[in-house]
Amino acid sequence: DSGDFTAIETLFNHNLSTVDLAHLLESTPSKTRILLWSFISEDNQGDVLTHLNDDIQQALLGKMSAEEIVETIQNIESDDLADMLQHISPDVSDRVLQLLPIQERAQVEGLLAYPEDTAGGLMNTDLIMVRADVNVETVLRYLRKLSLPESLDRVWVTDRNLNYQGSLAITQLLTNRPDELVSNIMSSDIKGIDAYADEEEVAQVFERHDLVSAPVINAEGILIGRITIDDVVDVIRENADHNMLSMAGLDEEGDIFAPVVKSSRERAVWLGINMATAFIAAAVMSRFETSIAQIVALAVLSPVVASMGGIAGSQTLTLIIRGMATGHITRGNLRWMLLRELGVGLLNGGLWALVIGAITVGWYHSVSLALVIAAAILVNICLAVLSGTLLPFVLKSANIDPALSGSVILTTLTDVFGFLTFLGLATAFLL
Amino acid sequence: DSGDFTAIETLFNHNLSTVDLAHLLESTPSKTRILLWSFISEDNQGDVLTHLNDDIQQALLGKMSAEEIVETIQNIESDDLADMLQHISPDVSDRVLQLLPIQERAQVEGLLAYPEDTAGGLMNTDLIMVRADVNVETVLRYLRKLSLPESLDRVWVTDRNLNYQGSLAITQLLTNRPDELVSNIMSSDIKGIDAYADEEEVAQVFERHDLVSAPVINAEGILIGRITIDDVVDVIRENADHNMLSMAGLDEEGDIFAPVVKSSRERAVWLGINMATAFIAAAVMSRFETSIAQIVALAVLSPVVASMGGIAGSQTLTLIIRGMATGHITRGNLRWMLLRELGVGLLNGGLWALVIGAITVGWYHSVSLALVIAAAILVNICLAVLSGTLLPFVLKSANIDPALSGSVILTTLTDVFGFLTFLGLATAFLL
Repeated sequence: DSGDFTAIETLFNHNLSTVDLAHLLESTPSKTRILLWSFISEDNQGDVLTHLNDDIQQALLGKMSAEEIVETIQNIESDDLADMLQHISPDVSDRVLQLLPIQERAQVEGLLAYPEDTAGGLMNTDLIMVRADVNVETVLRYLRKLSLPESLDRVWVTDRNLNYQGSLAITQLLTNRPDELVSNIMSSDIKGIDAYADEEEVAQVFERHDLVSAPVINAEGILIGRITIDDVVDVIRENADHNMLSMAGLDEEGDIFAPVVKSSRERAVWLGINMATAFIAAAVMSRFETSIAQIVALAVLSPVVASMGGIAGSQTLTLIIRGMATGHITRGNLRWMLLRELGVGLLNGGLWALVIGAITVGWYHSVSLALVIAAAILVNICLAVLSGTLLPFVLKSANIDPALSGSVILTTLTDVFGFLTFLGLATAFLL
Repeated sequence: DSGDFTAIETLFNHNLSTVDLAHLLESTPSKTRILLWSFISEDNQGDVLTHLNDDIQQALLGKMSAEEIVETIQNIESDDLADMLQHISPDVSDRVLQLLPIQERAQVEGLLAYPEDTAGGLMNTDLIMVRADVNVETVLRYLRKLSLPESLDRVWVTDRNLNYQGSLAITQLLTNRPDELVSNIMSSDIKGIDAYADEEEVAQVFERHDLVSAPVINAEGILIGRITIDDVVDVIRENADHNMLSMAGLDEEGDIFAPVVKSSRERAVWLGINMATAFIAAAVMSRFETSIAQIVALAVLSPVVASMGGIAGSQTLTLIIRGMATGHITRGNLRWMLLRELGVGLLNGGLWALVIGAITVGWYHSVSLALVIAAAILVNICLAVLSGTLLPFVLKSANIDPALSGSVILTTLTDVFGFLTFLGLATAFLL
């Protein structure tokens, strides 16, 4: 009854923060989500939208007219608005832009010029700028006229042409005399970040220098925006998620609670690709059907050889992909890495060749079968670790995301190597 | 020659930041690393140590006496020191503590009381505290006597017993009148974080409220420390890395450039576990050796059935593990999730059963074989997605990390299901 609805509305709009509401919507199947969304007051809807992941944001905005969208987004910051407009149909987004106040429209259009995953796409354009030749008192008088965000840690120093010169920490304003000049207490340690710098680079600058905010400049050195740590934290989480999820062919901006048909469609592609690779391996195996018909143990043991290679290779692959993401592994230490991995392959390959050989003797009472599987395990593990090392470099230079396609290509390789070496050796020596 | 060494020393100690030096050491094989380390000046060594990952930190500290360690760590903060002492042998760590100035020793011992992955383990104890009943001018006079860190965004408000009451943003000090009372302008929005709260919880509080720093309290509500965003960023990156790396049986604090023997040993365990599971699957397959001997196509197609289940299951598993980490998936929506995944399993299972059935007819010209493999694919994909959904919940309630052991258990299940359904159906209907 309507009493319950009022209770929900009160809860939603007074007791929960917009971040909590966004989290709740993200944790809800899509039908319930639309109902919950309708209980959120118009004042809060804009803020909630900015905290939702791309897929869900898009779904909710997709049901709204340009006029309703403009109504909803009144209080949100220009960078969030620019992100949002990139996720709706161009028609609606154009219409929204036309409906915006002229100044805000110019700001958003300026931001839309930068791809979403660059410094320009992350930045905010609400800047507090001061000149180097004024004193602390003047700055304080200026700041008192503005409404300052609580997390403001520094203001930006520019010349009269808005060229970025340095920054002034808020704490400097507290502890210096009123007549001290900005030029004497400003810091030029924080370099301006190029607007086209990749977001991963931005995150590294923040991490290296423990920054809370950083300036963004254009090609002419003009200060055009600032990036704050909260946006950088999102970048770090999303990119880490990306590496993990794309190894299973999933998208980090996908809706966890997508309905059956949408989820099935998203995952079908990955299953299809893997089916193709499984049949490649099966085709290799089928070349040895005569051998298998004579020694059925080969059929039973083939998957063991393939899977040991798959595991050894994917350990190396994961290590290399992560090392490339953190910048520890580059072409410069590839040679060292290859030698180390070959060493690991020989040691672990040797160890598990012995163990698996021993198990095979115990199981099938055949020393020659044991020798063949031991040799195949050693060769396959070595090939697997070498492929795991080289593959990410090859894919990267072909501009393919190693996290997305690395594991499926690697598994195909290790399956094919595994069947070829084991069944090939068996055919040569056991028949 | 020694001219080169001087050049390296100058580069190291004047041109590179300590973060860059740490990154360089992490990107270097262990032999070269020890040489590079010796070029870093003693003034910088402590700071570089704090930026190294656990494994490498431990290796370098392991070569030093307690006296050398005390020499090196003179300038580092108490929370970093406490972390470090947890990674060296208890004997050396005790000796280091004894050599510290009495006040610092007390601070570090206080921090050592909290596990490394809790709020207490993350916090710093250098607090700037003010009382609610003083005015802005008094606070400013007090702050001017201290050396303030540039990133200071707020000071903490406590009563006379050091009970946490709220916080005062630095920007409030700039914009309010000198005679304004702290009690009127302080904020109590930021709640004190319990010292035993898990670090992932701490990260969520920071992300939800876009914090730069947060207060840590003990069970009595006494303010005992503060956590800053730079430490939280490390937590976020490490935990994301943990989920990705442990799916391949790797450790996020491991040294990427560990030598062959160490790397081999670390990875051998995972290969051993996987070998055991591969033999479980092989044992299942060997029960059907008579069938395989009669229809060799069964040997060729079995791995295809197993691998489709493995892929479908690991997609679900990855999604659930990540959803549990972000807090979107809980026991509360498990039922919905199971039904959705079953739907996805039926749809994708049905689709790929048709495709693989058709391929099998084309390849082996046998409709009955095609029907059997189609049925096995459908059943195995459905079982795989259901296992992928349930497994993380089961493991978590048994206090086992789903990211670490989920994928290996799941693959065992999907291999066994795959062989059982396909070979079982084939034996029943084709022979």
